[in-house]
Amino acid sequence: MNIREQLIHKVDHKTKPVGSLGILEEIAVKIGEIQNTLSPELKKPIMLVFAADHGLTEEKISPFPKEVTFQMVMNFLNGGAAINVFCRQNGVDIKVVDAGVDYDFNGINGLVHAKVAKGTRNMLREPAMSMEECQLAMAKGSKLVVTEKEKGSNIIGFGEMGIGNTSAAALLMHKFTGVELKDCVGPGTGLDKAGMNHKLNILEKVSNKYVDLKEPKSILAAMGGLEIAMMCGAMLEAAKQNMILLIDGFIAGSAILAAHAMYPGILKNSIFCHQSKEPGHQGMLNYLGVNAILNNGLRLGEGTGAALAYPMVQAAVNFLNEMASFDDAGVSNT
Amino acid sequence: MNIREQLIHKVDHKTKPVGSLGILEEIAVKIGEIQNTLSPELKKPIMLVFAADHGLTEEKISPFPKEVTFQMVMNFLNGGAAINVFCRQNGVDIKVVDAGVDYDFNGINGLVHAKVAKGTRNMLREPAMSMEECQLAMAKGSKLVVTEKEKGSNIIGFGEMGIGNTSAAALLMHKFTGVELKDCVGPGTGLDKAGMNHKLNILEKVSNKYVDLKEPKSILAAMGGLEIAMMCGAMLEAAKQNMILLIDGFIAGSAILAAHAMYPGILKNSIFCHQSKEPGHQGMLNYLGVNAILNNGLRLGEGTGAALAYPMVQAAVNFLNEMASFDDAGVSNT
Repeated sequence: MNIREQLIHKVDHKTKPVGSLGILEEIAVKIGEIQNTLSPELKKPIMLVFAADHGLTEEKISPFPKEVTFQMVMNFLNGGAAINVFCRQNGVDIKVVDAGVDYDFNGINGLVHAKVAKGTRNMLREPAMSMEECQLAMAKGSKLVVTEKEKGSNIIGFGEMGIGNTSAAALLMHKFTGVELKDCVGPGTGLDKAGMNHKLNILEKVSNKYVDLKEPKSILAAMGGLEIAMMCGAMLEAAKQNMILLIDGFIAGSAILAAHAMYPGILKNSIFCHQSKEPGHQGMLNYLGVNAILNNGLRLGEGTGAALAYPMVQAAVNFLNEMASFDDAGVSNT
Repeated sequence: MNIREQLIHKVDHKTKPVGSLGILEEIAVKIGEIQNTLSPELKKPIMLVFAADHGLTEEKISPFPKEVTFQMVMNFLNGGAAINVFCRQNGVDIKVVDAGVDYDFNGINGLVHAKVAKGTRNMLREPAMSMEECQLAMAKGSKLVVTEKEKGSNIIGFGEMGIGNTSAAALLMHKFTGVELKDCVGPGTGLDKAGMNHKLNILEKVSNKYVDLKEPKSILAAMGGLEIAMMCGAMLEAAKQNMILLIDGFIAGSAILAAHAMYPGILKNSIFCHQSKEPGHQGMLNYLGVNAILNNGLRLGEGTGAALAYPMVQAAVNFLNEMASFDDAGVSNT
């Protein structure tokens, strides 16, 4: 038997009806396959939260002012945001990364200083990033993951903060999946109907501007964000390091779409943690052919869906390691 | 503002877009209302796992032999079952209750000895329980909850083990909800198509036999199980004590249907933790007008769905207590 067959055999001989742990059985087998063992372990779970600003906010595509990006970074550092609460609760370490916030943090303690630029350019006028900026962001993301791997982590979540980033994510989704733009665009932090129409109108213009781009990195540079590019680089490195990737919602989804276009094998290491209420997210999951663990009407980002799903991932590993088999427990099988 | 309005105000001023934590916001408000406070607490979470046998297993309505009930009780006591793993992981204490297992446990340590009878009678021939047995089971369930409340618990999960109990649950569902019996009956621990047809055939005969029963307790006695009746009594007491009730899947669902028929206000205190893959469960949730937190293809029982959902309930309480408000954090609101 290969490792997958051995894992399925182990799962099926636990003291429970075959298949009765649903998605936890799939996750247990997946993690066992990643780690090539019947007794996988989760070590030093870490959440990287990438923050950056978006030049496109000049076009009023978000109801929140751009300043909220740096204000929320300060909130993360003070432990007051949702992602802090959920990581604390579930034993996940957190690192907040300045990928490109339009604010001078003056070397403040506790923040990972990886700023590539003070936000992207307004992509309605010119590409959000130069190719060099995009590659630098990806390289910095990669380096951060290497550091965590060297410190002993084997499971990593990806979160983000960036006013305006559902616009970038919608454009990337449209380009990478072929889903119509109108089905990629949603209310983000809370646009009303008129705001959504305006956002769609702006994004259609952006999309038309870059319609000829084909190469994944060029697409990411033109229509992505610094936090998305850095996350994309981090995800690719995490897969290369054979870590377990915890994928959050719509923005993290756009990053893995870009990563998947560069390296489709990334899905082998990826666990999709929650289905966002942002309407485009379902289309992303469909395109990748994956299901998410949680579906609870969340649309906050920051990595919150991944942090909340972490206990389910732990449960998958724990039942595989700790549950008795029918033989162990002297329980009659069918 | 009343407490509900104050809670919604508090939730809406946390540093996140309004509504963006989805079901967690509903749970936070619900728990705040139950405890009549803006700063609710979860204290000493406990899972009661009720086990009992079913006389109807004589009719071969389960693929597993009846002996599995006591064997699984031993597995629970040895910490080797799924419910042990998930309770351990999530910091939930567990008590295993012999409500009516057809086995002599000889006062074994660690088990709560509350046996009413050595299993129910074969309900195809006579009522599963006498009214006295049913009331005794309910009273013992109630007493167990009083004990936990006195020890300081304010949140309680309900699990079960009983070969044959999806048959009892399907009959109770049909009777209490009016859903057609065929839509209440499922594979349970894993019946094939022929087995399902046989089960439905037997259950139709049982249902016809007791078609005139109207009073909830008479229905529970005739077609329930000792673990279901004890769980029903425990749930009613937990609501009376104003605790938070964590409701598991199909079997726990049948117990709360009975409890709800006796006291509809029980829903105010109840959190529905997961949607089982057992096909009838969706109909139960629809009838009660509620949504479950998790929907992951689980159909194991034991309280596993409740134990797995507990971190989501904690997350609801924790964000309410720990997240900064826009004012606290100096974050601009829309």
